[in-house]
Amino acid sequence: MQRVSFEQMHDELVRVLSKVGLQDQRAELCARLFAEASLDGVYSHGLNRFPSFIRDIRDGHVDVDASPTRIDGNHLLEQWDGNLGPGNLNAYESMDRAIQLARENGVGCVALRNTNHWMRGGSYGWQAAEAGLIGMCWTNTTPNLPPWGSTEARVGNNPLVIAVPRPSGHVVLDMAMSQYSYGKLETYRRENRELPLAGGFNKAGQLTTDPAAIEETGRVLPIGYWKGSGLALVLDMMASVLSGGDATYQIGQKSTERGISQVFFALKPGNSGISASQVDAIIHYVKQAQPAQPGDDVYYPGEQTVLRRRENLEKGIPVDPEYWNQVQAM
Amino acid sequence: MQRVSFEQMHDELVRVLSKVGLQDQRAELCARLFAEASLDGVYSHGLNRFPSFIRDIRDGHVDVDASPTRIDGNHLLEQWDGNLGPGNLNAYESMDRAIQLARENGVGCVALRNTNHWMRGGSYGWQAAEAGLIGMCWTNTTPNLPPWGSTEARVGNNPLVIAVPRPSGHVVLDMAMSQYSYGKLETYRRENRELPLAGGFNKAGQLTTDPAAIEETGRVLPIGYWKGSGLALVLDMMASVLSGGDATYQIGQKSTERGISQVFFALKPGNSGISASQVDAIIHYVKQAQPAQPGDDVYYPGEQTVLRRRENLEKGIPVDPEYWNQVQAM
Repeated sequence: MQRVSFEQMHDELVRVLSKVGLQDQRAELCARLFAEASLDGVYSHGLNRFPSFIRDIRDGHVDVDASPTRIDGNHLLEQWDGNLGPGNLNAYESMDRAIQLARENGVGCVALRNTNHWMRGGSYGWQAAEAGLIGMCWTNTTPNLPPWGSTEARVGNNPLVIAVPRPSGHVVLDMAMSQYSYGKLETYRRENRELPLAGGFNKAGQLTTDPAAIEETGRVLPIGYWKGSGLALVLDMMASVLSGGDATYQIGQKSTERGISQVFFALKPGNSGISASQVDAIIHYVKQAQPAQPGDDVYYPGEQTVLRRRENLEKGIPVDPEYWNQVQAM
Repeated sequence: MQRVSFEQMHDELVRVLSKVGLQDQRAELCARLFAEASLDGVYSHGLNRFPSFIRDIRDGHVDVDASPTRIDGNHLLEQWDGNLGPGNLNAYESMDRAIQLARENGVGCVALRNTNHWMRGGSYGWQAAEAGLIGMCWTNTTPNLPPWGSTEARVGNNPLVIAVPRPSGHVVLDMAMSQYSYGKLETYRRENRELPLAGGFNKAGQLTTDPAAIEETGRVLPIGYWKGSGLALVLDMMASVLSGGDATYQIGQKSTERGISQVFFALKPGNSGISASQVDAIIHYVKQAQPAQPGDDVYYPGEQTVLRRRENLEKGIPVDPEYWNQVQAM
């Protein structure tokens, strides 16, 4: 397996980003967010996503010079326009603003419209947690998930991120409303494996673990059946009405997924702060639960990320030569 | 089927609540919240729950005279102590306070500790939506759900409520992190019916639609398998660290589920407000999705509540004579 160091990947991405016009600091941050996604094992939204991000810039879908500008809002619930800038930079800046607001007021909310794909959503959870605050954010997407009761993709998978800071390893949940991503289905199909659990419907309308059968119908399963379907819908509604931006139905009318809407919360409790010992105690209790099978373990969200990060820092980040070569040739 | 009017149920509950010591306005509001749950079809947390609520008062678990008092907090993220007062009154007052904060500042957050079961969580979503604001709240519970990878109930089902106001019918999501409640499993078992979809594990560790087999193991399914398990965990963490109150592991050490922690958000966008036409357009688009089977329909969260409410207002609220007689004899 080919591995490259974090620094090598970062520097290579900076080189390409500078070439397509990102200014110094912006190229640095953008490269760091992509490289950190791969470092943490989220390869699909790290290096592997980078070539299509560059294509979006070259096709004029992403404006490398644009930053969010404040539009309106109600005191601590601010509305910003992303001006179709790079999605990860826009999201980072929005969470940064929410953190500032929360430091002064306990809570801050930034609703961002007219932005682009934020790549790895978890990045902005880690960002808040690193700052010592609770972070919560979500995005809408193009229609890619059939609502419960339908065969037609008319809600987004609208990833939701929640982060709680913890000195010995932040807790970061990063979950889409679909049970498995299309990328995951493809991976299982290529490896000729069944999904471990039902992930969608086949042509006969039955739940199945066959990835190819789900890809054929496009009927991926919302988490918790009707529950994830409803949660996806209200996340889209909130993202749209809080930001004044486009909802999933409008994003679906565009030639590519762009001009989407996002919400960023930061929370900072008062004098007592966030009790590290309480967060540790909660995790300790859950991890002591009786395993379902010998060798099973209960993981808290973010736990495996830290393990993967440590391994990849030490050994280098595994890269798919297809993508790595593409980037090096850019 | 026996039916009683909303007024009759409400007045009967007021009578009993006054008898156990709730003062006039508090008895009125408490009765209204219980009766509205039944009116909206949430019988399990309306009339049917009322006798055990009265028992909790008589056993000294609920202090009828206690109201939340402000402890601490950080500006707009306020910490309150519920003083073990009636859970639905405490929750109502907390959402009311979040609404006040949001009206002035765009966003308000109240974290409430040392409170009791809020009964129907959706009540506080409807409350925010009726005030024209977006509402979001959740509660922790005693351990009642095995985290993913375990057979032992060590997370709560931690219901989450999100409400978006809409002139032609509010959108209110009210969902626990377990796929089916224990009450629902019992109903299916009594009626000798299989669950429509897998709802937990049997003794062999396999997913099953047999309600009795799930009751036997106690291994109810978190929504979306590992995803709902992770979401339940972070909701508990946030409720505990934001309020400075007890987490699920501590609630599980008590003889009854009491002294729990909750979080209430209200959100009010700026000048543009919440666009009713946008919310309508989102719903319209989703409801036009191709049905999975002829006759299927896509429902938005809260849609069926409004239909049920209308029917029960007109015909009276269906009551289980067992509970109705108990209440009348109190």
